[in-house]
Amino acid sequence: MSKIKIDAYSLLQKIKMQKPLVHHLTNWVTIYDCANIVKVLGGSPVMAHAKEEVAEMAKIASALILNIGTLTVDFIEAMKIAAQSANEKGIPVVLDVCGAGATHLRDEASFSLLGSVKIDIIKGNASEIARITGEKVKTKGVDAGTVEKDMLLIAKRLAKKRQCTVVITGKEDIIVDTQKHYIVKNGHELMTHVVGTGCMAASVIGVFAAVDRNLAYAATAALVVFEVAAQLAAEKSKGPAAFKNALFDCLFNLDKQTVEKMQNVSQ
Amino acid sequence: MSKIKIDAYSLLQKIKMQKPLVHHLTNWVTIYDCANIVKVLGGSPVMAHAKEEVAEMAKIASALILNIGTLTVDFIEAMKIAAQSANEKGIPVVLDVCGAGATHLRDEASFSLLGSVKIDIIKGNASEIARITGEKVKTKGVDAGTVEKDMLLIAKRLAKKRQCTVVITGKEDIIVDTQKHYIVKNGHELMTHVVGTGCMAASVIGVFAAVDRNLAYAATAALVVFEVAAQLAAEKSKGPAAFKNALFDCLFNLDKQTVEKMQNVSQ
Amino acid sequence: MSKIKIDAYSLLQKIKMQKPLVHHLTNWVTIYDCANIVKVLGGSPVMAHAKEEVAEMAKIASALILNIGTLTVDFIEAMKIAAQSANEKGIPVVLDVCGAGATHLRDEASFSLLGSVKIDIIKGNASEIARITGEKVKTKGVDAGTVEKDMLLIAKRLAKKRQCTVVITGKEDIIVDTQKHYIVKNGHELMTHVVGTGCMAASVIGVFAAVDRNLAYAATAALVVFEVAAQLAAEKSKGPAAFKNALFDCLFNLDKQTVEKMQNVSQ
Repeated sequence: MSKIKIDAYSLLQKIKMQKPLVHHLTNWVTIYDCANIVKVLGGSPVMAHAKEEVAEMAKIASALILNIGTLTVDFIEAMKIAAQSANEKGIPVVLDVCGAGATHLRDEASFSLLGSVKIDIIKGNASEIARITGEKVKTKGVDAGTVEKDMLLIAKRLAKKRQCTVVITGKEDIIVDTQKHYIVKNGHELMTHVVGTGCMAASVIGVFAAVDRNLAYAATAALVVFEVAAQLAAEKSKGPAAFKNALFDCLFNLDKQTVEKMQNVSQ
Repeated sequence: MSKIKIDAYSLLQKIKMQKPLVHHLTNWVTIYDCANIVKVLGGSPVMAHAKEEVAEMAKIASALILNIGTLTVDFIEAMKIAAQSANEKGIPVVLDVCGAGATHLRDEASFSLLGSVKIDIIKGNASEIARITGEKVKTKGVDAGTVEKDMLLIAKRLAKKRQCTVVITGKEDIIVDTQKHYIVKNGHELMTHVVGTGCMAASVIGVFAAVDRNLAYAATAALVVFEVAAQLAAEKSKGPAAFKNALFDCLFNLDKQTVEKMQNVSQ
Repeated sequence: MSKIKIDAYSLLQKIKMQKPLVHHLTNWVTIYDCANIVKVLGGSPVMAHAKEEVAEMAKIASALILNIGTLTVDFIEAMKIAAQSANEKGIPVVLDVCGAGATHLRDEASFSLLGSVKIDIIKGNASEIARITGEKVKTKGVDAGTVEKDMLLIAKRLAKKRQCTVVITGKEDIIVDTQKHYIVKNGHELMTHVVGTGCMAASVIGVFAAVDRNLAYAATAALVVFEVAAQLAAEKSKGPAAFKNALFDCLFNLDKQTVEKMQNVSQ
């Protein structure tokens, strides 16, 4: 693998210019943070989950984020309606398989979504993604388990099977499509001590995907921007709450030079 | 128009003395911030949405806030039950038409509420309010569109038609009832970079309306207090997260002199 | 009553070692803070409320927290299923009777839960707990009313009747089981100016109960840790938002010496 340069800042500027509307059907725990991070980046978040309006909302959006973190049976139904509408319009659909493996309902929801609509980006941590591929791994709630398998291989297999982009977040993030892969080594340990960094990562990926249809590249740029900001935020923070606030403010104030200097991407 | 003085601080003191219970049926994105801002001002927030308890909760409350930001069909039903109960008790009902114009469901919910219960204060941004009056404007999600029409005229027409107070938030806020109007020029650009300032404004209006039945005056005082605090907060903030935290703390610590010196209200 | 020493720090270390999964069915207002405080302490929070998955989720958890703050009829049903599963597994179930007394639905939910599953820890403020015992007290929303009765006596009676641990939070917290009682005099007035400190207290109690089955002792240790952190946070905070952030960070960074020096527990 060799280090490469990603022009993540150009995409960030594109977001600030286009202000893409990013429609979420997400979980109730981190919904505020998901909306707020889209806003801080310059996008326009909208959260709507009623089955009577999700198709229409997806039609005016530039990306759709689905997150199964606090799902119900009705919610899965609304997700499918929204995703079908997004598929028709041709906007990217991101699925965060939050907590996959923890219960049968989550596994079934994930497989049912993957089977009935086109998911453009599947995102999860190692144990969640392993579960989605059918590997036998037990997730403990929504936090990352450790996985022994070669995750890059697992990601590639899933990308090929589902003809999509796969993002595995962790100490090193793996981004794979049917042609290529990227590894992002940015980020900070404090991210694991705050609820919601995983869900926010999916939203950041969605807002970047809204402005660049090379989805693996957009997802890589998204994680670079998010995690460079996390590193800057960690430097000035004494704990997870200060860190989370600083993360939003560092994202808001990020400049080109910093993104270029601090990014750590391999291919 | 000429500048006038509003005794916003007296109402703030009244809130701290009376600690009014403010019942919300609001959206799931900003529900925490809506509750917290009522608490920080000295009121007592309660969020309850089960159709089995909303009538009873509204009966012990001093104001009711409705917000259609993440509505469902069941939720609209619960809103009507709560509002009927509020109407019977004679407490002010605030409707934040969050995202009106984005989907048919939101428009229908707004019109159905306005048609079946007494709404005392309708609050929205320019494009949302224009939509409620029947003007042809397209809202992009929940963020403000730009509207070409004379919003003061639109607000007056709506106030007359619905026999209520109308609040249009924006760079300059317009507050109108059937008799008079106010323009508030306080606030700060950072408010547009944080999710929830619009929803919080509705809650602040509700808690002020709970202690003064001159609703246009109470809403004006509410926006003065909220936006003066925002200006103070912005001075000491390097980004939207720091700003939001400072906004709560500036509201909590606001003194009479500052409110009087910084307010910018015209009539 | 005489002052005693609680080895709260050992339990905190046990949490960091065991990283217990703490399953919540809680309210939508403070759900993020409840999850985050478990994470900050070193536990692993999971929020799941679909009746199709709660039994399975409770089975992989080490404690279950129920909170009736924004309940619906369906939600009560899901709570019972989760609690039955928790009872079978033998993990502690904490019930926060948030807002009990405000409406019939809340009272019925509380009594129905207490009647149909084993609740190990009942937690509330004075007026909520009084209500649960059948004492005639009127709660004003979810904020604490003042109660004239001898709360220690009320708590003891309830603990005996329900064969459980009872926690009454307030300026002085009362923790009682069928054998013994503790009084915690830590905490700070700023806690009453932020939404969610009560709900967070229940989550903190749950994560401590997950690692020590002497539940009254675990709950006492939990409140000591939470409220010592609150005192530290208050020292450096100019308002409720700064305070809440500092509370998380002080909890995250708490050391043994500080916990031992600042704790104020009587028996």
